Amino acid sequence: MSSGYRIDTVLRVRTQHRPGQLARLATAVAAEGALIGEITTLRREGDLSVRDITVETNDEAQTERVVDALRVTDGVEVLDVTDRVFERHTGGKIHSTSRLKIEHLADLRYIYTPGVARVARAIEADPSRAYTLTGLANSVGIFTNGTRVLGLGNIGTIASLPVMEGKAVLYDQFVGISAVPILVDTTDPKEFVQTVLRVSRSFGGIHLEDIRTPDCFEIEAELDRLLDKPVMHDDQHGTATVALAGIMNACALVGLDLKRARLGQVGLGAAGSAIAKLALSYGVGEVMVTDPNEQAMAMLLARGARAADFAGVMREADIVVLTTGKPGLLEPSMIRPRQVIFALSNPDPEITPERARQAGAAFAADGQSVNNALAFPGLFRGALEVRSRAITHEMMIAAAGAIAGHAVRGEVVPSPLMPEVHRAVTRAVADRARADRLSATMRL
Amino acid sequence: MSSGYRIDTVLRVRTQHRPGQLARLATAVAAEGALIGEITTLRREGDLSVRDITVETNDEAQTERVVDALRVTDGVEVLDVTDRVFERHTGGKIHSTSRLKIEHLADLRYIYTPGVARVARAIEADPSRAYTLTGLANSVGIFTNGTRVLGLGNIGTIASLPVMEGKAVLYDQFVGISAVPILVDTTDPKEFVQTVLRVSRSFGGIHLEDIRTPDCFEIEAELDRLLDKPVMHDDQHGTATVALAGIMNACALVGLDLKRARLGQVGLGAAGSAIAKLALSYGVGEVMVTDPNEQAMAMLLARGARAADFAGVMREADIVVLTTGKPGLLEPSMIRPRQVIFALSNPDPEITPERARQAGAAFAADGQSVNNALAFPGLFRGALEVRSRAITHEMMIAAAGAIAGHAVRGEVVPSPLMPEVHRAVTRAVADRARADRLSATMRL
Repeated sequence: MSSGYRIDTVLRVRTQHRPGQLARLATAVAAEGALIGEITTLRREGDLSVRDITVETNDEAQTERVVDALRVTDGVEVLDVTDRVFERHTGGKIHSTSRLKIEHLADLRYIYTPGVARVARAIEADPSRAYTLTGLANSVGIFTNGTRVLGLGNIGTIASLPVMEGKAVLYDQFVGISAVPILVDTTDPKEFVQTVLRVSRSFGGIHLEDIRTPDCFEIEAELDRLLDKPVMHDDQHGTATVALAGIMNACALVGLDLKRARLGQVGLGAAGSAIAKLALSYGVGEVMVTDPNEQAMAMLLARGARAADFAGVMREADIVVLTTGKPGLLEPSMIRPRQVIFALSNPDPEITPERARQAGAAFAADGQSVNNALAFPGLFRGALEVRSRAITHEMMIAAAGAIAGHAVRGEVVPSPLMPEVHRAVTRAVADRARADRLSATMRL
Repeated sequence: MSSGYRIDTVLRVRTQHRPGQLARLATAVAAEGALIGEITTLRREGDLSVRDITVETNDEAQTERVVDALRVTDGVEVLDVTDRVFERHTGGKIHSTSRLKIEHLADLRYIYTPGVARVARAIEADPSRAYTLTGLANSVGIFTNGTRVLGLGNIGTIASLPVMEGKAVLYDQFVGISAVPILVDTTDPKEFVQTVLRVSRSFGGIHLEDIRTPDCFEIEAELDRLLDKPVMHDDQHGTATVALAGIMNACALVGLDLKRARLGQVGLGAAGSAIAKLALSYGVGEVMVTDPNEQAMAMLLARGARAADFAGVMREADIVVLTTGKPGLLEPSMIRPRQVIFALSNPDPEITPERARQAGAAFAADGQSVNNALAFPGLFRGALEVRSRAITHEMMIAAAGAIAGHAVRGEVVPSPLMPEVHRAVTRAVADRARADRLSATMRL
């Protein structure tokens, strides 16, 4: 039972407006183990009152039990039940909106025919003018085939669309990028690459999302090789960037020098592999890795990581990052005093931060604290602003530093709702690309 | 020299604020054959005044001559030159915008992780819920390979993007559809179809645009066959719908019964073929066609059109529609008294309406009066609202009727800026789809 899966439901109820009525209602809710959040009185109707009551539950079955209990509670009438999450998703979360208003026929002639023909010809003569005369240079396509969505596995393209729309919402709100979900109906990595290549000119950057391993490695590497524009797989690079930020701050908190420390990566899926690779690029003292998958191990060993087993990692590493998808894998007895533990599997970690700290960890966090939304918006915004042809490890490390620098005292990463974080990530990434002469090398 | 290609340029000028100064400026503009539009005084600076003066020219060279002339005009200082069209296009014309505002961490939990996981699972269990829980059912992908853009020919994908963005602007403003341009980098029709199929689940409808003939016929037919969602090629079906509306009203104006009249279609490119096909579906008395392309002729003859040559059409047809791309093709002497002439080639028609009327035509129009923007927004909106699996000829005919019904007295089609036209087209299309039991047959 993870608190991350709490469901907020708004119940619209009509009750007698007299003492004890709300208490009776609250008692019925409590009897089902549910919490009451906000209560808003909407109106009085004679001696009746209509209220919206937010009820927090752990699952839909519990919500139903609460509603059923209220329906038979004397003096309470349930008028409507609204699931907050489903309510917010109704009609979709993004809309391709005109940036101009057409009021007169002249407006139509400017932005549509015949005026647009001159713009088309100008771009034909000099394609780089598309950077300014279209939305291209501020746009990202979010590509998925739905083969590994959140913790839900291969749920297919249509079911993954609300997740992609959610990413687009964050792009718009955090950094003003225009992002569009593109569902690619194939589970074949080569077909996926071919499809993205064919439509890649529609976007300034390519964001890959929720693609299963090992396909995601091949797809990302191929697209990065073939396209002269930023390509990033969020589940690898977004996660790795935020994880590195967290690790940097955790080291500072406990007095470890990350450049001399030993980091153990347990689990080499998309996130784990990317964290280990980025740690190597960053120059962490030593990176130990362990995973049953030989191909994944070989990829990391080739880059300079050291092979180990789980017990060996726990014994030797100063910092342990777990991305195994196995809740409760880490026994408290395995934790070495003063170790730093990042148990990142969602929604249920390998060990809860509380248990890890009780077992002697100097610092412990779970996946809730490593939110991708801190990284991908600024990574792309920075890359697009300077027309970088790629998003490199150096740019991710710069982003991690910017994220780490905005954490409040005692936390390892800041809230993604702080606008200054995204501005700082953008600036750090753009500066790094400029310094590495990646600036203005994007080709559309 | 078409008045459709007039360029509006805003010149910011500083002049002495004294009598005769503006006259001198206006004289210089007139000497280059340019027109003066709006004049706005921005501010006084001592005895100087700063003004924005809109100058209308026929081409960019003429604009340059005007600017050069003003630069050497005594007492006039040109501060800035802004091309209105390029100014409107700067930064692109559309943006993928969030429909929700994230203010608190709870908002993030509702629309992003973990809340979105419940929505994804709900759609996985019942894909039809994607109609309401994502933006899918109100979205259109605008697909092009840039092989036949406006009158510009094969200018490629990037250069066609401003045109596609323009379409998306109209979708948003006229009917509230979220439309996204997708540039498909292939000139092979089979690859084009394959690519659209692979990403088709991203959108509720497929709008094809600016694809050369005969590829556009194959592409549209294949996608229509393979997809259970609306597919429309605007250059065929949008144009044909608006042309039919114009023809209906022209017949009413001159007292012809379209169901008994003889219509001659000269030119069987994308637009001409589609107009002839739609006229046959509508039940025009007789449809004569002429084109050097045998394949195009065969396609129309198979549907019941009669083969003719250009002279034969002019001799026999009551209504002549020309879509040849050949300016001035139609000699006034060929026009029969009381004929209805639609010379639709853009920007320069086969004969100007004035010359056609002088030659005895009862009614004459050029391509300016047949604006696709009247049809495609409502066609898709109507189809999407009832979840129709296709856009049929019957729906286009219903749309044409709705468009025709909104023309003001003496005109054959209304202004696309009348919101009620798009509402009427939407309703007519949706009603027709319902009557034909196409409603709720779309599959995502």
